Amino acid sequence: MRVLGVDPGLTRCGLGVVEGRRGGTLRMVAVDVVRTAPEVPLEQRLLAVSQRIEAWIAEHGPDAVAVERIFARSDVSTIMGTVQASGLALVAAARAGVEVGTHTPSEVKAAVCGNGRADKAQVTAMVTRILALDSPPRPADAADALAVGIAQIWRGGGQRRLDAAAGTGRPVGAGWDDAVAAQAPARQRAAERWAEAERRARQSTRRSR
Amino acid sequence: MRVLGVDPGLTRCGLGVVEGRRGGTLRMVAVDVVRTAPEVPLEQRLLAVSQRIEAWIAEHGPDAVAVERIFARSDVSTIMGTVQASGLALVAAARAGVEVGTHTPSEVKAAVCGNGRADKAQVTAMVTRILALDSPPRPADAADALAVGIAQIWRGGGQRRLDAAAGTGRPVGAGWDDAVAAQAPARQRAAERWAEAERRARQSTRRSR
Repeated sequence: MRVLGVDPGLTRCGLGVVEGRRGGTLRMVAVDVVRTAPEVPLEQRLLAVSQRIEAWIAEHGPDAVAVERIFARSDVSTIMGTVQASGLALVAAARAGVEVGTHTPSEVKAAVCGNGRADKAQVTAMVTRILALDSPPRPADAADALAVGIAQIWRGGGQRRLDAAAGTGRPVGAGWDDAVAAQAPARQRAAERWAEAERRARQSTRRSR
Repeated sequence: MRVLGVDPGLTRCGLGVVEGRRGGTLRMVAVDVVRTAPEVPLEQRLLAVSQRIEAWIAEHGPDAVAVERIFARSDVSTIMGTVQASGLALVAAARAGVEVGTHTPSEVKAAVCGNGRADKAQVTAMVTRILALDSPPRPADAADALAVGIAQIWRGGGQRRLDAAAGTGRPVGAGWDDAVAAQAPARQRAAERWAEAERRARQSTRRSR
């Protein structure tokens, strides 16, 4: 399957197309960051982001559009553009009749790093490894969009395990490590990191009870 | 000029078309509320709101789209849909090449009631009076959308006075009472309420210095 991952934003909106299937290798099809200047009127910035997402859907014909879900508790004014851009991505997908998936940042981190609290550098490193890229994706901001795309492909079967790693503490099922191990040897370390992070997540879940 | 006012929302999105000019009478062209059910997937709800706004722009050919600006300090999850719907309205306007205006709730209240802290009943009463409606606009939720449209037409010349009434304390200029007085006699009370509210706003501005 082919997924367009969107890391929504107004100043920078990451777009990444990933192709593959759960248990198989994944490859990067395209990656970019849409930038709009703060001095441009808001409606023109939103239109630019919207049109670029629509163009990518038309060009790459994804089976699904995956959008990072916003779960901020901060003052809404600081993430207004991000929330609006996420809405535009969802509408663009719905308009094109493409399936939609949303994933919180910790779900995405748990999917690619095995740890819902992984930092940005870890996410970039794992995206590079999972997609067997020669170097980290450029522009750097776009790694998150690729990570969202990977999460969309991987989360189907690994849902409960991923939720556990993300810290929601639901029971952990089988199948996930198998899927990761089926990746090319260069990406074997993903499974090791995953298992380690999962142990840590389990411990912290136990402690918080 | 003709203005499409939008009171953004996902469960209820108010749309109101107002026509007229500053200093002249205003009339209501159309009013409605787009409703989407919470059990429908988010992207479909956003699409429904987006398509209805686009249809209204195409049908009514407004010179401007006025959108209530969101200035909430609350947890973003509670107003996520509102923020996304406002983005869709802005994009719909930009896509159609129509001018955009945004007004905060207190700016809208100051425009139609002369008091940036007017309550919902006051806004509805004033919208009914300003547009010379036989009864309050139906559905009731749509009064806010009409108020935003009225604000777009009126705020041009009355900006400083309106800002003063909204509590920003800038110097108050002339022209506003004249404009309101030029409305039909049935709406004369608007000017009276305005003047009274303005006096109160001035006093509270002075007190807060």
